Amino acid sequence: MAMALEAQLTDDRARLMGAFNTTRRATCELSAPLSPEDQTVQSMLDASPTKWHLAHTSWFFETFLLKTFARDYDVFDDSYEVLFNSYYNAVGEQFPRDKRGLISRPTTQDVLAYREHVDAATRKLIETTTDNTFAKVAGLIKVGINHEQQHQELICTDIKHVLAQNPAFPAAYSAQNPMEDEGSPQLGWASFDGGVIETGVDWELADFAFDNEGPRHNEYYEPFKLADRLVTNGDYLAFMEDGGYASPMLWLSDGWARVQAEAWAAPLYWQKTDEGWMEFTLDGLRALNLHAPVTHVSYYEADAFAHWTGYRLPREGEWEAAARGQPIEGNFLSPGTAPHPVQVNGQSAPLRQLFGDVWEWTQSAYSPYPGYRAPAGAIGEYNGKFMSGQMVLRGGSCATPVDHVRASYRNFFYPQQRWQFTGIRLAAEA
Amino acid sequence: MAMALEAQLTDDRARLMGAFNTTRRATCELSAPLSPEDQTVQSMLDASPTKWHLAHTSWFFETFLLKTFARDYDVFDDSYEVLFNSYYNAVGEQFPRDKRGLISRPTTQDVLAYREHVDAATRKLIETTTDNTFAKVAGLIKVGINHEQQHQELICTDIKHVLAQNPAFPAAYSAQNPMEDEGSPQLGWASFDGGVIETGVDWELADFAFDNEGPRHNEYYEPFKLADRLVTNGDYLAFMEDGGYASPMLWLSDGWARVQAEAWAAPLYWQKTDEGWMEFTLDGLRALNLHAPVTHVSYYEADAFAHWTGYRLPREGEWEAAARGQPIEGNFLSPGTAPHPVQVNGQSAPLRQLFGDVWEWTQSAYSPYPGYRAPAGAIGEYNGKFMSGQMVLRGGSCATPVDHVRASYRNFFYPQQRWQFTGIRLAAEA
Amino acid sequence: MAMALEAQLTDDRARLMGAFNTTRRATCELSAPLSPEDQTVQSMLDASPTKWHLAHTSWFFETFLLKTFARDYDVFDDSYEVLFNSYYNAVGEQFPRDKRGLISRPTTQDVLAYREHVDAATRKLIETTTDNTFAKVAGLIKVGINHEQQHQELICTDIKHVLAQNPAFPAAYSAQNPMEDEGSPQLGWASFDGGVIETGVDWELADFAFDNEGPRHNEYYEPFKLADRLVTNGDYLAFMEDGGYASPMLWLSDGWARVQAEAWAAPLYWQKTDEGWMEFTLDGLRALNLHAPVTHVSYYEADAFAHWTGYRLPREGEWEAAARGQPIEGNFLSPGTAPHPVQVNGQSAPLRQLFGDVWEWTQSAYSPYPGYRAPAGAIGEYNGKFMSGQMVLRGGSCATPVDHVRASYRNFFYPQQRWQFTGIRLAAEA
Amino acid sequence: MAMALEAQLTDDRARLMGAFNTTRRATCELSAPLSPEDQTVQSMLDASPTKWHLAHTSWFFETFLLKTFARDYDVFDDSYEVLFNSYYNAVGEQFPRDKRGLISRPTTQDVLAYREHVDAATRKLIETTTDNTFAKVAGLIKVGINHEQQHQELICTDIKHVLAQNPAFPAAYSAQNPMEDEGSPQLGWASFDGGVIETGVDWELADFAFDNEGPRHNEYYEPFKLADRLVTNGDYLAFMEDGGYASPMLWLSDGWARVQAEAWAAPLYWQKTDEGWMEFTLDGLRALNLHAPVTHVSYYEADAFAHWTGYRLPREGEWEAAARGQPIEGNFLSPGTAPHPVQVNGQSAPLRQLFGDVWEWTQSAYSPYPGYRAPAGAIGEYNGKFMSGQMVLRGGSCATPVDHVRASYRNFFYPQQRWQFTGIRLAAEA
Repeated sequence: MAMALEAQLTDDRARLMGAFNTTRRATCELSAPLSPEDQTVQSMLDASPTKWHLAHTSWFFETFLLKTFARDYDVFDDSYEVLFNSYYNAVGEQFPRDKRGLISRPTTQDVLAYREHVDAATRKLIETTTDNTFAKVAGLIKVGINHEQQHQELICTDIKHVLAQNPAFPAAYSAQNPMEDEGSPQLGWASFDGGVIETGVDWELADFAFDNEGPRHNEYYEPFKLADRLVTNGDYLAFMEDGGYASPMLWLSDGWARVQAEAWAAPLYWQKTDEGWMEFTLDGLRALNLHAPVTHVSYYEADAFAHWTGYRLPREGEWEAAARGQPIEGNFLSPGTAPHPVQVNGQSAPLRQLFGDVWEWTQSAYSPYPGYRAPAGAIGEYNGKFMSGQMVLRGGSCATPVDHVRASYRNFFYPQQRWQFTGIRLAAEA
Repeated sequence: MAMALEAQLTDDRARLMGAFNTTRRATCELSAPLSPEDQTVQSMLDASPTKWHLAHTSWFFETFLLKTFARDYDVFDDSYEVLFNSYYNAVGEQFPRDKRGLISRPTTQDVLAYREHVDAATRKLIETTTDNTFAKVAGLIKVGINHEQQHQELICTDIKHVLAQNPAFPAAYSAQNPMEDEGSPQLGWASFDGGVIETGVDWELADFAFDNEGPRHNEYYEPFKLADRLVTNGDYLAFMEDGGYASPMLWLSDGWARVQAEAWAAPLYWQKTDEGWMEFTLDGLRALNLHAPVTHVSYYEADAFAHWTGYRLPREGEWEAAARGQPIEGNFLSPGTAPHPVQVNGQSAPLRQLFGDVWEWTQSAYSPYPGYRAPAGAIGEYNGKFMSGQMVLRGGSCATPVDHVRASYRNFFYPQQRWQFTGIRLAAEA
Repeated sequence: MAMALEAQLTDDRARLMGAFNTTRRATCELSAPLSPEDQTVQSMLDASPTKWHLAHTSWFFETFLLKTFARDYDVFDDSYEVLFNSYYNAVGEQFPRDKRGLISRPTTQDVLAYREHVDAATRKLIETTTDNTFAKVAGLIKVGINHEQQHQELICTDIKHVLAQNPAFPAAYSAQNPMEDEGSPQLGWASFDGGVIETGVDWELADFAFDNEGPRHNEYYEPFKLADRLVTNGDYLAFMEDGGYASPMLWLSDGWARVQAEAWAAPLYWQKTDEGWMEFTLDGLRALNLHAPVTHVSYYEADAFAHWTGYRLPREGEWEAAARGQPIEGNFLSPGTAPHPVQVNGQSAPLRQLFGDVWEWTQSAYSPYPGYRAPAGAIGEYNGKFMSGQMVLRGGSCATPVDHVRASYRNFFYPQQRWQFTGIRLAAEA
Repeated sequence: MAMALEAQLTDDRARLMGAFNTTRRATCELSAPLSPEDQTVQSMLDASPTKWHLAHTSWFFETFLLKTFARDYDVFDDSYEVLFNSYYNAVGEQFPRDKRGLISRPTTQDVLAYREHVDAATRKLIETTTDNTFAKVAGLIKVGINHEQQHQELICTDIKHVLAQNPAFPAAYSAQNPMEDEGSPQLGWASFDGGVIETGVDWELADFAFDNEGPRHNEYYEPFKLADRLVTNGDYLAFMEDGGYASPMLWLSDGWARVQAEAWAAPLYWQKTDEGWMEFTLDGLRALNLHAPVTHVSYYEADAFAHWTGYRLPREGEWEAAARGQPIEGNFLSPGTAPHPVQVNGQSAPLRQLFGDVWEWTQSAYSPYPGYRAPAGAIGEYNGKFMSGQMVLRGGSCATPVDHVRASYRNFFYPQQRWQFTGIRLAAEA
């Protein structure tokens, strides 16, 4: 959850209105090419139907903003409070997560009407509320915008999982225009000094950050180095061809158990066909690009791969120290085209592909920074209560909006999860 | 599976064309009020999405009729052979049943186009094929029509289960016009002599019947009696209020295990509210009609109820002996209105509500009649392979087309299943 | 449950005492070669630890006999009422069945002491009770004896399942002396007239029978024939080698689902080794005897095998009609040697191996006979509440005490169960 | 896994022989009061039968020491290589963990014979091997001894879980002599400076440590304070009475899911009775001692409790910094008496109960220290492959041998596990 800092209170209404409108529109652009049938399906517990995302992001503004701060706000439908509550116990009961795909109504049309209702009320609030109230709500609206950007990424990854269940492997979006393939550069290393390093967001300086990114604090690191590009499909295929999925000694114990229980033998969306390895993408089934970054691997696979190379995964503080001050450039979400990681293209060492393309697994468990306190109330459930059992990922992906990510940004997933655009950057002691 | 008997070969093409058109149209009338989202959801393993039913019934004609007998038939989509194969191993691989709700495409529009394609080809075949071929295919078309009628009933029961997952309890169809409530008559009995009784269909006489209804054979019965009306909601409520669901001595062992594991405390769609007992119907949540037949009870519940009364459920041969020669009248499927069982209305003893309203559980396990042989080939999988673990039900329901059922008709479900319109008629030794 | 008929009241005490002592001793002989560790393990939900059987059979006498009829009876341990109650809801709560193997105490020694306590009290009751009371309890004692005989068979089948989990395949008992192998005779048939046949026990004539064996009633059968010997391992191997386990068209739908879910490819205890097919027996792993009856097959396997041959399984009334009046001879339980079915040896057609060797699956679902009523009270739970979902087996097995079985005896198991000594006799229309 | 450091090579054989004999004897002393039945049961996946522990610890010496270094060593039983391999993939196949309780043979007597066989060969090796070989194997033997000490603790916790399944709550051992109850002192705090702190074992100085305790490295900590005693049953009861188990806002998300799924409402072995709260101990059911440390709580419960107090759990480096140099005194394993945590007794602030009594959950996920590398070969599987998903615990418990634990010792369990003697010490920012 965002810390609504004093600094943010000077944002003018127009700028916030612009960001709100842009974000809300982008979500609809993502869902527009999808049929009502597409938008209804929940293909696994971890994923949600598109129309649920469309509704839940609206629920977020309605619940945390409009119900409290919008005078005379007319609740769209009382039953939505439960139906579209994801996990906020402080708000109240939640419709069971595993049954989101059983709810045929409200339909997609109903949900779009809900969005318009919430949009209108939010715009009116931004335009007409007192300065005093605006100072209070601006931070909440920023949280709502960033929250919605997270769900834009989830819309992409969740509909990808839905369509992957279909033996026809249908496409959701058109592919990006192909880039010139420069091949994948030889793996090089960028070296960094160790010592006491400041890490985490500095609340005084940040325009916006989630609560889990701070407070700024010291950590101690030995000198280290990071690979200057992501691990490619070609690199990963070498691991597979060397028996990676059949070598228990390479794997964490929990990872090996998962390999056996779920018969993992390749990244999630790879398909072996008569024409060789293919990969299911949001543009359908395509030949595997050996120079593009490997993606849809779990932490266990990332760790086993690193073990096989003799290197390791980065710690999150190492990654952040390396990323601080780097430009946020790369392959990000572009509604209308199918998000997919691409080969190194026009980026130069050190630290190509640092942002965008794929979320990079770190070997850091997701825990609170020293001095972290979750905010009071329901909004405090946003990040803090997930601080067990998950691993930190850094850098954003091809499905992340470009203005959503930053060096201090901490994403987190369970080590077995593979449906996000997750990938691998190697690290080592210097 | 139907026996294509010589007698049927004299059917003229026009009559068959009429039946085909009527049935195909009725299926579409059932799905028309449902949104694409409604038609996509699979709410449990036993149920299928509406659009799957629309497609599978077309697949049936395409697979068993058109691919073999229609010259130059153009297969609509090769991938449908697997996707819409329900359980015919002789045809080949089947898309996993538990994942039918994960298939967002083909969409409902695509499926309607598939239906039109199959309809056109079937009509052309009926009109233009040689007499020789027509003689061969007429029986198959009748099977296809009767098969589709079964799926009309399943469309009703499956969408009811989908909508029941929704906390808003939405309606699919409008209610029937209310009938005058004459109350429920005192339970009386109709008595029957025993002895050697002929049972099962006589292939020489039947226009159409499924393979499992024959051959005609002898059974021996002691004198027996059947209740002259169905068990009502009021009757069943008395069982509940007497602690029926808390009295293990009333239950079969497997039934009691199910009561505990699934916390059964009432029929499937009953809801206890502040206004008393309500019942979810295809027209939404309605006050429980104490005079209407109880429905959505499992065999276990039917048996426990009978045990509580001191009577028993009928054997299927008893039921058939009593039903033979009775008129097929009652409360049947009427596309456009919500199927629901109704109170006794204008029927007189003995044996009110024998057809329609609810399928009546018998105490007979579903087994082959003496001399039964499943037909050769895929069509032989229609009925014969299900002859273990299920119980026979008789009489049709409010969701059965009126011209689909007959005295010899054997329906069958597992004893724990409750989502069909199943109910109870008591029996006893004379 | 046994019907305590008037005729039984004339039994003299001495005879009953003899039967009681013999039975109780035989149970201990079965457990004596087993270590405390052997007797503690529960290898699956369906099976129970040996020491549980030793205790439960004593609980049966204590609960139904001693607590009611033995003056000043001193309950051995109050906690046993729950701990060793198998499924009698009328008695009260039951320790969870799936946790019987977690109960290390009472130890086997404690349980033997419990047996002696119950034996002494029962003997005293038999010797000293009034004639009036003896008339009341004699029937109950017979039930207890027959109940204990059933558990003798279960001790054999359950410990076999325990030892089969052990990669060393240890032996529990010594093998029987090998018989001369006469080969397996060509399969022949015994033919029977049909018509109205009386079936079920006649309470006036029986010394003892369980409640589910009656009442005597009429059934109608078409003329039929039964195979004159059991299906052998060699016969069954031919089915396997013809792809029996890979041919869905041979199987009931539920059976085929089971074949796939549990990867069935042979009877339960068969092992393919470098030396060919072996079979785990209570004497350890032995080469498969092709002339001995196949055993440890489920109903589904029996039905698929019959389907493959073009014949069918018998109906239970057919079997009983054929067996009535036949001598009860064959290969039965002999404590001290390992129960195992043997090849035809010295028996002549028709109807070799009718009793003993293996329980013969019938195609009859286990249901109440016309007019059946379960006895009142807890004892009524013995048989009646299991009358759904199970199939009838006839004839007894190599683990059945010879004086336990009879022509009217109805055993019953679920169609997927394989750990009993179950086998196959073919039938056909005449 | 132990690092066999040069320093250890000077150990003389006599000292090692003494430690070996003492440890092996202590294991037998723990199992001696347990019946064969007790020793056979596996009550859950996480726990193993006592006789499995007795065998596996012997397997460890046989596999890693005797098979390689003992000349002419005669393997006791070839089948044990698989049967008693816990999780060493480099050694080969493992008997399935979840089926350890199904293996009735070898019996406890057989296992004791196996122990004697291994003991004799190990003693002979220690006595007679060359200096050169002794230098190589001394480290391995120390690992074997420490490994066996870990299994002594597991014998206690696993048999406790077995006996807890028994409604009679039997005792395994006699209680310790009761201590004078001085009450529980007011909670105080010990404060520590932060900054760069050296943590982890220094291989140059350690006589023995596991591989995961090093290498020594720097960490940075803010100033912090630790509670001067453990959280007591009384403290924890206050949390419960304040609705701790019904307040989702106090819990981690995964923790709250577990509370609901498993209906947690108290620590694992607490029982609410008519006489108030009781606690199952290895001496049977006893009244809850409000002044003794709470134990058998999961990480989730420890974290929720800390959240409720407004404090937090320690980080492992904080704990280690505080513990370094402290005497290893407290309530440890004493074969013959029932291990159980006791109230503060004769210890003085700061940092009472630091060692022994209960393992203290830290908020540190179990990960490799910077520079950690697992040793090559099977022994490298001892610790390294478990470095995901688990939390670090520190300080040893009442079931830990006193000479087994040290300040740098890292124990680790999954956050939901409760059957170990786990407890809570609070921490806070200074």
